[in-house]
Order: sequence, then C-alpha cells, then structure tokens
Amino acid sequence: MTQGSGFFISFEGADGSGKSTQARRLADSLRAAGHEVVLTREPGGSEGAEQIRALLLEGESERWSPETEILLFTAARRDHMERVIAPALKAGKLVICDRFADSTRVYQGLDRADLRVLVDQLHALMIGREPDLTLLIDMDPEQALARALARGGAEARFENRGSTMQKRIRAAFLALADEFPARVRRIDGNHPPEAVASEIRGLIEGALATGTPRT
Amino acid sequence: MTQGSGFFISFEGADGSGKSTQARRLADSLRAAGHEVVLTREPGGSEGAEQIRALLLEGESERWSPETEILLFTAARRDHMERVIAPALKAGKLVICDRFADSTRVYQGLDRADLRVLVDQLHALMIGREPDLTLLIDMDPEQALARALARGGAEARFENRGSTMQKRIRAAFLALADEFPARVRRIDGNHPPEAVASEIRGLIEGALATGTPRT
Repeated sequence: MTQGSGFFISFEGADGSGKSTQARRLADSLRAAGHEVVLTREPGGSEGAEQIRALLLEGESERWSPETEILLFTAARRDHMERVIAPALKAGKLVICDRFADSTRVYQGLDRADLRVLVDQLHALMIGREPDLTLLIDMDPEQALARALARGGAEARFENRGSTMQKRIRAAFLALADEFPARVRRIDGNHPPEAVASEIRGLIEGALATGTPRT
Repeated sequence: MTQGSGFFISFEGADGSGKSTQARRLADSLRAAGHEVVLTREPGGSEGAEQIRALLLEGESERWSPETEILLFTAARRDHMERVIAPALKAGKLVICDRFADSTRVYQGLDRADLRVLVDQLHALMIGREPDLTLLIDMDPEQALARALARGGAEARFENRGSTMQKRIRAAFLALADEFPARVRRIDGNHPPEAVASEIRGLIEGALATGTPRT
C-alpha cells in the first residue's frame, strides 16, 4: 500500500466520547484553512466496506463468530484502504477517519488476548499501514455511556453491556496509547467540546508543521 | 477446529467437469448404504457464508480487489467450517463439499504467485483443516468449457475468459494434485458419468474401510 505524501489521522474512543463530533469539527476547520480533507469512518467508508459493515451490524449478535467477525472487519478495512484512504493520501490529502484498526484491537480483543493477536496478524498481512496520528478521546465512562445510550441507534451492541464494559473499553484504549506512544495521543474529552476541538486543532497544526505529532 | 471422527471429502475441478453431479451421486449412494452424509458447497454452505457469497458473486468483476476477495472467501469458509463442516465431522458424519480451499488456491492464485501465498497464509491462520480426501475431476478443457457455457448462469466470470483460461485452470489443479499427493486424487472425468461415479465410489469405500485413501 503506497503511503503517499498526505497525512492520516484517526479518531478513537468509546461511543459517546464525542469523537465523531470532533472528527467533523477538525475536518471543517482544516478545510476552512485551505486543506484538502477526506473525512471517513469505519467500519465502512467505501462502497464495498459499507456493504460488509451491513453484514456485520445487522442481525443477531451471535450471527458471526469472533474470528469471522475479525475477517470481515479486515476485508472491509482492506477495501476502505484501497479505494478511499490510500488514493487520498497519495494525492497529498489529509485523511480523517472516525475509528480505524485500534477499535478492532480494543473491541474484538476485549475478552480474549488470542483474538487481539489475530487482529494484529491480519493487520500485518492485509493492511500494514497505521495512521500517522491517532487521537484518543478519553472520557469519564459513565458520562460517555449516558451519552451513547441517550443517542440510541442500531449499533449499541457494545454500549448496552453497561458501565463495567465501558470502563473496560476505556482501559483497553488507554493501554493502546501506552503501547503506541508515538502515534496515539490521549485527549481529555471531559472538557467542553470547544476546548477539546481547540486542543486537537493545536496538536494537528503542530503535527502538520513538523511532519510529526507535537509533544 | 476439532477434527472429530467423521470423514471430509471435497470435490474440485473446473466448471463443467461434472464435479457437482458427482458430489450429489456420491452423497446419494453413501446415504443409500446407511451413512450419515452432509452435502455442502463453497463458496457458501452456511447461512452467513451464503450472504458473503452473494457479496462476492454479484456486481461487477472489479468490485473487489483480489486481496479483499481472498479475505471474503476466507471469512465465508471460516463460517462454513464452524457452523456446518466441523459440527458434522464431530458428530461422526461424512461431509462432501463441492469446492473447498483448493478452488481458492487455483482461481485466486492463477495470475499471481503472491496471492497463492496469501491464500495459504490466511488458510493456516483462520481455517487450518484440509479435507481428508480431495477428488479432482479432471477433464478435457474444451469439453468442460462447452458444458459450462451451455449451462450459463451468473457465475460464469471465469468461464467466459475462454479456453486458454480453462487450460490454465486445469494445469493449476493438476499442479495441486502433485503438491498434495496423499490428499488429492485425480479422477478422469472424460469417462461416462456412471463410470466416473463408480470409480469414485470404489475409492471412497476403500478410504472409509482403511481410514486413508486407497492407492
């Protein structure tokens, strides 16, 4: 997969953490500053990947085994990478992706360490590329859960497992930030959205100026 | 994946070789002899795998990259293995599968050796199990092509590429028989269907009697 000269940013965090809102705000403000921005999301983000997403999210929760689910997530990501992310990066654009491989590492690896290994093996074999910078919107689990539940929707499978689950998801994201300190930045999502957006904007301006994330 | 005490037979060969007919005949004759038989097929064979099959076979031929296609075939096979093949083998049944991993090796690996490697890597990681015996119905490529084209249907993607393609597919299947001599048996599909069925029946009776394929 050609890396190109663009810059690839992913947003991660629990549902209800405000990451989708922040991803949109960042895209808007970078566009206003004259950047070419592709705002996309996972699972999905390309025509084929959206169809695989539909297979993954519709139907009963036991419909797919965890292993088949990981294969389908990887197939969707491969399509998304080939059709949307890699071409945009090659054309020098900024790509902002709401969730990427870290979400698969966290959610699919939550209950079984062997599945986390499998996610990484499939990623190495089929995807390869990581974002240049990952913004982890970290937030009080109770607040994030309340927001996610208030919003509702068909994709609340994980959210419905309650606040213990939400705490474990938060811990898994924080562990990931420790595992990839050069790539993953924790953002305090408990601040007002404007303050969070401003912090993110500053971080991205620094990263784009130097080509690496600002410390 | 538990191997169980059953016996797992796959049929392989070009479209038009008569393998589906022979798979059905074998299932019928083994049932008549009192065996519990599960006759299934790939791609598909389980509810989830059939839905992935629909994604793979509908739409334009460039819809998926070869790599994404291999991931989807592997996801479908994983589901089929978990939900249909492995439980049947564990219950001591005979499983007859019309196409299995060898078809992916041949068709997806036909133009690019690196993709054949990828198919094998994903198979080792996600499937593991091979059939106990694979019957390769080998047939004159021109005859097989004529039969496949006469039958028509939506899955004629490979068939439509003509007789040069058909010859290359035959050669790839024969190479596979050389690669796995203990597992893959070449059956001459140019004989009348009754004679082919009789040869297969004899081979399977021998294999079931000894637990290994008869030489």
